[in-house]
Parts: sequence; structure tokens; C-alpha cells
Amino acid sequence: MHFRQVNDQPSTFVVILEPGEEAMSTLVAFARDQSLTASQVTGIGAFERVVLGYFDRGKRDYQPIPIERQVEVLSLIGDIVGKGDDLKLHAHVVVGKSDGSAHGGHLIEATVWPTLEVVVTETPAHLRRRFDPETGVALIET
Amino acid sequence: MHFRQVNDQPSTFVVILEPGEEAMSTLVAFARDQSLTASQVTGIGAFERVVLGYFDRGKRDYQPIPIERQVEVLSLIGDIVGKGDDLKLHAHVVVGKSDGSAHGGHLIEATVWPTLEVVVTETPAHLRRRFDPETGVALIET
Amino acid sequence: MHFRQVNDQPSTFVVILEPGEEAMSTLVAFARDQSLTASQVTGIGAFERVVLGYFDRGKRDYQPIPIERQVEVLSLIGDIVGKGDDLKLHAHVVVGKSDGSAHGGHLIEATVWPTLEVVVTETPAHLRRRFDPETGVALIET
Repeated sequence: MHFRQVNDQPSTFVVILEPGEEAMSTLVAFARDQSLTASQVTGIGAFERVVLGYFDRGKRDYQPIPIERQVEVLSLIGDIVGKGDDLKLHAHVVVGKSDGSAHGGHLIEATVWPTLEVVVTETPAHLRRRFDPETGVALIET
Repeated sequence: MHFRQVNDQPSTFVVILEPGEEAMSTLVAFARDQSLTASQVTGIGAFERVVLGYFDRGKRDYQPIPIERQVEVLSLIGDIVGKGDDLKLHAHVVVGKSDGSAHGGHLIEATVWPTLEVVVTETPAHLRRRFDPETGVALIET
Repeated sequence: MHFRQVNDQPSTFVVILEPGEEAMSTLVAFARDQSLTASQVTGIGAFERVVLGYFDRGKRDYQPIPIERQVEVLSLIGDIVGKGDDLKLHAHVVVGKSDGSAHGGHLIEATVWPTLEVVVTETPAHLRRRFDPETGVALIET
């Protein structure tokens, strides 16, 4: 992973992930290292494997959907909220297979190949998530 | 729906929709209340039902595609143009079913569950749409 | 194509493509004319035909996936890097067919109909791509 801050108002980073890197942990580590406050994340690239998640309302948990093949990352959209150990990246992805069919879900984990090009736009706000027992999801407070 | 203004240059809002809210009308009401000028909208979350639209060139109208099940919102991208009663939100969505397959279209209406996390970035510009009789669509003027 | 600069901090353009225009070449021409530095691109709209690409790791090249029909453009996400003749737009798209199924890939070329509404957000940074012989792809340097 390497990055460059490309703007300071708003504070904006281009983050480039490299072959073999796991996308979620690499982006969370970047966000913690930079002490990012509430941020928006957008990216494209490709994965050599990905585990998508679909939230099962009955089980109140994500059902994993592994895709064990090379896919284009057509969109990665997410937000970073919280700080320190509470910092969370919530991202959804759409990926494309070799036949052009699109698939997607909540991003659980993914291995990058050859690149993932991510733009992170930070805001000065501090937001956090709080677990909501009714839905079983950690929702953003404002 | 609750929201926070997270930046003022550019003017940026995080808007969080709650279980049972209709996405289009809630976002349009938010935009009118805040007297937003030309804005960009990006979001992720989940719907418990959604009506997608596909523009039928022959009929010059949107053909509705209802999906009556819980889906992840993988991307919601749109723009807000116009003001007052003429303010329009134009949004397209990609949603994911429990098998990971992706579907999408013009967003006609959708019921949020459990959350829709939307970032609205405003610009100082005033833009508007004007109906174009040749295509049957209201196009953005610049 | 017509456009308006809608903000100057960050420098932001709304670019509206018109019926029959080819998306990639029109956006690249716009970026060169405006001498854009590193920029982020987001859009929605519709195409009357599109050629998607899927990167074939064995051949180190994009395999073309033509879709010869009217589709909604559900997301177009990309970045502009480089300057002058070296300026490159890298964009991925998700498109929706009349049955609501989503498809997507690297954007090779596409014909707009009736509109493509694109937001281009520029940064002051200068970034460039360099061909990486190991992966066969031009990767962004930071």
C-alpha cells in the first residue's frame, strides 16, 4: 500500500493497494495510522478473491458469499466512522466476473490483484456507530 | 432520518435513513428543507423492497422493476438539481440479493431497512433540468 | 457535451454528455482541454451500447464484453491521472438491462443515450501511471 494526500480542503488521499494485500485490514490500518475522522471512501480495481456479505434478517448476521476467482472491482463505496480501536470501515462492493455479470455485497474481505485505487475524503466531523439491538446492526449516530 | 453537516467547504451532510422510511421522498424532503443547491449524492445500506426503473426508449417512460425482498444497497449515486418545487433527485442504485447477484436501475422508490447511509456534497451552483421532447427525459442544463 | 464548473474549492465540474457521444473519448478530451490534474469521476446515465473489459491475467490484456443494447448506467467511477498526451481516464461501470440484471467491467467504450451526468472533482496533485511489467497494468504512482 502506498498513498498520497492530494488535497487539504477537503483532506483527500489517494490510496493504492498492491497485489496480495487484504483490502479491509489494509484500509483500516491506513485510516488508524492517519487518525482519520469521518471519511468517505470510493474505489475501483480488481480482486483475485473476495468474500461478500448479505445481512440475514432472521439470524441478525452477515451470511458470507465467497467468490474464489479474479473479478473487476466495479465500485467500492464506504464510510469510515469512529476513532482508535473503535474506528470502523463500512464498505459495499460490486464486482464483475469474466462474463460481465455483476455481483456484490457488504465487503467482508478481499485479496487485491493487481491494484485497488481508493480515494478517501475526510471531514472534520467525529461520528460514531452504536449497536442497535432491534436490527442487530451498528448504526451511525449524528 | 437524522443528519449532521460534517463539513462546510464543501458543504457536506451525512444523512442516515431509518427502518421503514421511503428513500426518495425522504431525501427530497431533506434537500428541500436544507434549500440545497446542485449536489452530489452517494450512499450504501439496505432496502427491504425497491422499485427499479428501466427507461423504455419506445414508450419514452420508465418501466418499473419491483424487487420485493431484502437487498443490500451496493451503491446509490445521484444528483440533486433545481430548487423549491422544481428540486429533483435523480438516483441510480445497484442492489445485491442473498445469492450475491447484483441488480439495478433508476431509483423509483424503496423502503429502507435497517439503514441507508448517504453523503450529500453541495456546490454553490444553481443548475436545473429541462424536459427534452426528443428523448422524453428532463436533461440537466449547464 | 456541455459542462459547468460548479465549485472551486475543490474544483468541481458537472459534465453532461449528449446522445450519440462516445463516453471515454469525450471525457478524456474534456480533461485535456481543462488541463485537469489528478481527479475523481462519478456518474450515472444511460448507454445505447457499451464495450466492457475484463482483465485476463493469462493474456495480460482486457477481454472485450460488448453489450449491444440500451442499458442504464448505474455507476461510473473512475480517476484521471497524468497530463497532456499521458492523461488517462480509468473508469469502471455497472450497467442495468431491461430485466434489472446488473453487468459491468472496465469501461472500454460506450455510446451515450440520452444523457450521462458526470461529476469531476479535481485535486491540485500531479499523479501518473507507470507500466508494471509484472502485472501488465499501468499502476498509479504516489
